[in-house]
Amino acid sequence: MEFETKLNQLKEILGELVDLNAVGALLGWDQQTYMPRGGAEARGYQSATIGKIAHEKFISEEVGKLLDELSQAAADLDPDSDERRLIKVTRRLYDKEVKVPTEWVMEFAQVTTAAHQAWGEARAENNFSKFQPFLEKVVDLRRRYAEIFAPYDHIYDPLLDDFEPGLKTADVKAIFDILRPQQVELIKAIQSVPQVDNSFLHQKFDEQKQWDFGVEVITKFGFDWNRGRQDKALHPFTTGFSINDVRITTRVNPDYLNMALFGTMHETGHALYDLGSDQKYERSPLAGGASLAIHESQSRMWENLVGRSLPFWEYFYPRLQEFFPSQLGNISLDMFYKGINRVEPSLIRVEADEATYNLHIMLRLEIEIALMEGTLAVKDLPEAWNSRMREYLGLTPPNDAQGVLQDIHWSAGMIGYFSTYALGNLVSAQLWERINQDIPDLPEQIRQGKFDSLLGWLRENIHRHGAKYEPQELVQCVTGSKIDPAPYIHYLKAKLGKVYGL
Amino acid sequence: MEFETKLNQLKEILGELVDLNAVGALLGWDQQTYMPRGGAEARGYQSATIGKIAHEKFISEEVGKLLDELSQAAADLDPDSDERRLIKVTRRLYDKEVKVPTEWVMEFAQVTTAAHQAWGEARAENNFSKFQPFLEKVVDLRRRYAEIFAPYDHIYDPLLDDFEPGLKTADVKAIFDILRPQQVELIKAIQSVPQVDNSFLHQKFDEQKQWDFGVEVITKFGFDWNRGRQDKALHPFTTGFSINDVRITTRVNPDYLNMALFGTMHETGHALYDLGSDQKYERSPLAGGASLAIHESQSRMWENLVGRSLPFWEYFYPRLQEFFPSQLGNISLDMFYKGINRVEPSLIRVEADEATYNLHIMLRLEIEIALMEGTLAVKDLPEAWNSRMREYLGLTPPNDAQGVLQDIHWSAGMIGYFSTYALGNLVSAQLWERINQDIPDLPEQIRQGKFDSLLGWLRENIHRHGAKYEPQELVQCVTGSKIDPAPYIHYLKAKLGKVYGL
Repeated sequence: MEFETKLNQLKEILGELVDLNAVGALLGWDQQTYMPRGGAEARGYQSATIGKIAHEKFISEEVGKLLDELSQAAADLDPDSDERRLIKVTRRLYDKEVKVPTEWVMEFAQVTTAAHQAWGEARAENNFSKFQPFLEKVVDLRRRYAEIFAPYDHIYDPLLDDFEPGLKTADVKAIFDILRPQQVELIKAIQSVPQVDNSFLHQKFDEQKQWDFGVEVITKFGFDWNRGRQDKALHPFTTGFSINDVRITTRVNPDYLNMALFGTMHETGHALYDLGSDQKYERSPLAGGASLAIHESQSRMWENLVGRSLPFWEYFYPRLQEFFPSQLGNISLDMFYKGINRVEPSLIRVEADEATYNLHIMLRLEIEIALMEGTLAVKDLPEAWNSRMREYLGLTPPNDAQGVLQDIHWSAGMIGYFSTYALGNLVSAQLWERINQDIPDLPEQIRQGKFDSLLGWLRENIHRHGAKYEPQELVQCVTGSKIDPAPYIHYLKAKLGKVYGL
Repeated sequence: MEFETKLNQLKEILGELVDLNAVGALLGWDQQTYMPRGGAEARGYQSATIGKIAHEKFISEEVGKLLDELSQAAADLDPDSDERRLIKVTRRLYDKEVKVPTEWVMEFAQVTTAAHQAWGEARAENNFSKFQPFLEKVVDLRRRYAEIFAPYDHIYDPLLDDFEPGLKTADVKAIFDILRPQQVELIKAIQSVPQVDNSFLHQKFDEQKQWDFGVEVITKFGFDWNRGRQDKALHPFTTGFSINDVRITTRVNPDYLNMALFGTMHETGHALYDLGSDQKYERSPLAGGASLAIHESQSRMWENLVGRSLPFWEYFYPRLQEFFPSQLGNISLDMFYKGINRVEPSLIRVEADEATYNLHIMLRLEIEIALMEGTLAVKDLPEAWNSRMREYLGLTPPNDAQGVLQDIHWSAGMIGYFSTYALGNLVSAQLWERINQDIPDLPEQIRQGKFDSLLGWLRENIHRHGAKYEPQELVQCVTGSKIDPAPYIHYLKAKLGKVYGL
């Protein structure tokens, strides 16, 4: 009874913290979708105040004492019980956050709000210098953040750990070291044979029709419009304010079909994960995802393993042709399928194909590590970016908007985040192997526009668990091994080998 | 220095409270514009948590002590200095709020969130019984609220005072007693002469064009799109999250021109007021309006004294005809002007003309007083509503959606609010008399589509002061007398006398 009472006390506080985090997320959603420019300064104060209150509430002596008492009392419980996991997850977050001074939290909220605004303007004006002073503050804040967690193996470790619990910079480097040569080899092989045509993707496509087609697709996927919505944003993202209110955003390019098409499926993958948490986790830290890599495995699965597959387009291509008869009426399914799977080094990460994508990530990881180590100054960032783009992808960005200013992450203070995208790709392929063993006729189902078995499998094996398990634990449990690049390489080679006749 | 330090301490706390209130307002804005249905339950918790935190922060011992010390120290200051007024305004709010138990605040936030959702559904389904249990809880909460402030002259007084500082139920009754017979007499006189035609307002009007015309009008008024925006909502409202982020909402009826047209101007009047607070009041309780009546005087002025005036339409009517040539091409300016000023008893308050509007308010005031006194039960509300509609306006609502369910206010817990609408009408006419003395060529300016002198006058005399002065004080200072029904009656008789040739 004593345990029960204390657990309920903790749950009540955690409920309010979840509320505050949801409110903070709403402030962010509004800022990126509808907020007029004039609201930026006040929004900075609002985010800072909510951040400060949540921080102070979480690191209170009361929470510390409850966690101490509950951790001891929970030792007898099943290690996989919700109660014990809730205490464990909360303990981990608490132990990290208790070290961070409130002043840092407030300054971070203020600086990133201003930085986000400056980034948007700098990008619109192709003017990195407008963003530079804000990014310098962000980097400085992130270095100070890492120092809080000293000693560390590497100054980048504390940042990575926030997004991917338990992972080290050295781990990621090791995985990437296996991955890099194989991806480079594949790209070279592709570049040695005739390129496939995808010029038909670069035509005028009515924005509303693009939007409407996307809505049809994700409705089929199982996106529940009573529990979510879709809006436009400069940089697409998914956010949520409850298990039952998860929102995606999409950017529509009237001259290029892929951006909205695959972006919408990608964000829906994230949203389906958040919508799939067990309802009993509402208002608890166990709602949501296990980590960013696991989250990304879901978005990349729906975007690529489903959305760039032949069975998917066997079902949806005739419908897409109905939307765009003049643009696609004379393009065969085979041509279309090859076009959307074309491999070609390009400037923009979010538009990159499956084979070159991870190179964009490696570039960012190296730059972030250098910024954190202090071996690269923010003012030298455009040059560092552009020289790596030339080295890795053979391309020079014509301007910073298509180079160093393309991603929102740094303006939001998110350094340490990017590698989780590549890890997500790897996990998506690991899961896909397993799913296809469990649902042997999945390709046939997709060919008929049926996604309920797939979504059901994901809900049962991944989604419903929310944040209960750590990422490596979850991947191990579901696939039998930790994060492993082999299935992704295998998937890429098999698929692209066919597309390019290798 | 001591005083300065303590004042800054207070200002810092008040800044965070303003942030929390802004966040609460954003939760409300989102709920009424974009939130998917599934988010309702969590939104209730979020609003309750923010309300609870703001409440606890405001009624803390620290604030009480600071106010005590500052009130004493401020006695030497100019009574009209910002410092002394800030302390006075804060003191008044504090003294009220410190009496309200946190439990009440949390329950109120929860109940009204659920009630709002239920109201929307009940209204859509024409089913009062769906709303009834929620309204019963609201009334019960409001009765308990009034009891906190016992003793009172009348149980309705504590509610009224929240919206209109210092005003008593008896005061409002007295003003309405002067107003009622004169409005009834005017309506009778109008009903004795031939009715003007307004059938052309009830045609199909493309929704997007209605929206676009409204945008043109309010842009001319001086609405700053960098500091505000407009969205659709079931029940139009204005809200703000900063002096520099004020948002209006509009409802568009494809079969009736007036709803969006005058609704947009109305909400813009509110928004211009909030946008006009002196920037030095940002993040302070002195930003915003003096009271609801003063706020409504601004919205009604732009909607009626400007938007239903002949000079306004001499400028804008040719443009409106360009938007709707087939609907209005053959309607003369004279016909249009008379049509939009047609007086006719009707069911919906927000669509009521200037002459009958106040009767809608009187009906609501009587019902609210009866609910609070306990002489009317919620279950008997539809009948009470309908019988008064018959008595006052000679009409029977065909269903509850067009009757007792038409207003959002009660679902949001706002009992005590309605009479401020009628008071706003009165103040708008008082101010208008004064403005026309100060700007003798105002009608000519409006005829040329120029509103900057008018907006400048309002900013200088009303807007910039924010909430610094109490409403009666402000009206007295600007017009030379307190709230007075005579100018409104004078305005109505003069204008409608011409329209109807009385």
